[in-house]
Amino acid sequence: MSGVEGLLKQHGKPIKDVYLDWENGSVVDKEVLDVMIPIYLEKTFGNPAITHKIGWETYDFYVKAKTAIAKPLSVDPQTLALTHSFTESNNLAIKGLLPLNKKKKKIIVSEAEHLSVIHTAKSLFNQQYHVDIIPVSNDGTVNLDVLQEKLDDDTLLVSLQTTNHELGTMQPVKAALEIVKDKSEEIFFHTDATAAFGRVPIDYNKLEVDLATFNSNRILGPKGIAALYVREGIKMKALYEGQLSVEILSPDVENPALLAGFAKAVELQFSKFDQVKENITRLRDKLLYGLLTSIERTEMNGPSGERRAPDNVNISYLGCEGEALTVECSMNGIYVSSGSACTSRVLMPSHILTAIGRKPEEAHGSLLMKLNRLNTEEQVDYVLERMPKIISRIRSITGGIEL
Amino acid sequence: MSGVEGLLKQHGKPIKDVYLDWENGSVVDKEVLDVMIPIYLEKTFGNPAITHKIGWETYDFYVKAKTAIAKPLSVDPQTLALTHSFTESNNLAIKGLLPLNKKKKKIIVSEAEHLSVIHTAKSLFNQQYHVDIIPVSNDGTVNLDVLQEKLDDDTLLVSLQTTNHELGTMQPVKAALEIVKDKSEEIFFHTDATAAFGRVPIDYNKLEVDLATFNSNRILGPKGIAALYVREGIKMKALYEGQLSVEILSPDVENPALLAGFAKAVELQFSKFDQVKENITRLRDKLLYGLLTSIERTEMNGPSGERRAPDNVNISYLGCEGEALTVECSMNGIYVSSGSACTSRVLMPSHILTAIGRKPEEAHGSLLMKLNRLNTEEQVDYVLERMPKIISRIRSITGGIEL
Repeated sequence: MSGVEGLLKQHGKPIKDVYLDWENGSVVDKEVLDVMIPIYLEKTFGNPAITHKIGWETYDFYVKAKTAIAKPLSVDPQTLALTHSFTESNNLAIKGLLPLNKKKKKIIVSEAEHLSVIHTAKSLFNQQYHVDIIPVSNDGTVNLDVLQEKLDDDTLLVSLQTTNHELGTMQPVKAALEIVKDKSEEIFFHTDATAAFGRVPIDYNKLEVDLATFNSNRILGPKGIAALYVREGIKMKALYEGQLSVEILSPDVENPALLAGFAKAVELQFSKFDQVKENITRLRDKLLYGLLTSIERTEMNGPSGERRAPDNVNISYLGCEGEALTVECSMNGIYVSSGSACTSRVLMPSHILTAIGRKPEEAHGSLLMKLNRLNTEEQVDYVLERMPKIISRIRSITGGIEL
Repeated sequence: MSGVEGLLKQHGKPIKDVYLDWENGSVVDKEVLDVMIPIYLEKTFGNPAITHKIGWETYDFYVKAKTAIAKPLSVDPQTLALTHSFTESNNLAIKGLLPLNKKKKKIIVSEAEHLSVIHTAKSLFNQQYHVDIIPVSNDGTVNLDVLQEKLDDDTLLVSLQTTNHELGTMQPVKAALEIVKDKSEEIFFHTDATAAFGRVPIDYNKLEVDLATFNSNRILGPKGIAALYVREGIKMKALYEGQLSVEILSPDVENPALLAGFAKAVELQFSKFDQVKENITRLRDKLLYGLLTSIERTEMNGPSGERRAPDNVNISYLGCEGEALTVECSMNGIYVSSGSACTSRVLMPSHILTAIGRKPEEAHGSLLMKLNRLNTEEQVDYVLERMPKIISRIRSITGGIEL
């Protein structure tokens, strides 16, 4: 018994399954898996640094796959360092700069960054670094005035996400970049583009950031592979030590099957980019405004319209408790996450919802739903039909406490 | 053109394909892939920390998979920390101990360790650590007298591999462990068991090491997942910062598809362990002694008989140059690696072959062949038939220089 078997027995089989928890786990697209299978079984599975036919074939495949990933970003494939996860990319973006830039000791991040950025920055406290955390507005937008104030001659790096992963807030990266580079061309600028990649247009010919994080698993590619864009000329040090091969910023990271899946996922995500974006935006608005209008005492988290990522629906259901909410949704076949971050297995309110002013109980009673091209209008209709009943039931259980 | 297309065109199609470069890259077993596919497409793909049906199912699967991996090692599943690679495991084993054990400043490793151990240890020089490198004999066996000498009150950790990955040398881990723990129970003992796992019996009920590294991809499981055994009660710190989930020593490492593949690979590797070991040992001896007797001026690297891992064939072909050798083998459909480690794309002689006394040119002229349960007697016969001609040809090109 692993402890959850009892829960699963009680759960039963829902009449429908609508998965909207793409932030926390994802299948891969069937076409992505189709390109991975032959590599798992028979071809280009080798080490791209080895001098024999399979090594060369792997190297050839490797270059082509990285080229495919680089294409929609308008970057040189050689500027993409592969990593095992966006978490590793974010760690590398920050810690990888330190050994070769020892004079400057200040790092600036926003309070709405992913924990892999915030915790990495804070971990440097004990190495005599100073970390400034920039506040965000009540829709999650980073405060550029504070950014401007905090920049100084000691600043090594500014890390600001492109799009917030929980609120969908599109951050003013271009404006922030200008402020930073106006202060000094030598301050590095990193953007975690995990929640933006494949959802909003990104062109690094036009937006000259120094470092940017991308993930495969958020665009229906396999988990276990991600990338860090490192602008040409920037010197970094790997987080790991090992026997290097083709990738120099992460030893033993070469993984042909996962790389093939990542490249295919990028190709699929961008092949009908405008059409998919338009469709998802329409479903998002239908779901977002449908829930807000049909259920009382609901409040949207994050901005609306063009300033919101096309895949993001985040609503606080006042008077509801988070864990009960996700479980009740699950009983109805709707899989979503609440505004509770499970850090070291302790239930904490999401640091992002508290950053925008939500009380802990409001954060716990919030649900994040994400959409991608596998979701259908029929699924959205089903969610809209069910959610009012789910919320009523939870409120009736908890006594509908006025929060 | 990626630069290798020309090489591939010249190469042509060999009459047979015999892959023996398992040290550098591997397919997965078909049965391994079969358990991964449904996870990639539809089930238990979630985050095991999330409270909904798919999260619970993933957690349930997760516990069972780790139990399957722990079983042949006789350890508690909870003592296995998952990582992305054996390189990460080796880094974690060393660096993860440091923050919580700051008083002791000496680390001892052997000179035949994998570079992920040696480079990690050496990277600590600039943090005021002292690293002692224990020499090995001419068959690659670590010198226990020197180990005994080097142990002192300042020693934090000893890291000695179970089996050497290039020479197949079975290290005297049990004897080394006794020497270390006789000196002090508080000295940590790590063993990199990457090259031993699934090839030689390992039972941590009988061999009470503190930390041990295991890899999926060396037993026909997928690349991108590995483990570090951490004996109960040992406190460590993750190498990364991020949003933790079920695994506490590596954020964002949870990867259901790869974990399922790893667990299945373990199950398959151990289900017919004795039979497979016996068969591979027989093929190894046929190949090893066949090559040594049919080709002049050959010298075996590593020990013979029971002290050699059952999958390892490593021979120096005197008067041959490494790169030409692997290419000529490849033209004949035999895929092997030479004693040249490609570190940062610079061709260096293997540090292990030089550690056992090989001159650089002898190291380059050495070939490592590994065997696993996918290799057949017919393949071994083919290699035995071809290799004398390959070596003759290379020697005739290089003029058969007496080295």
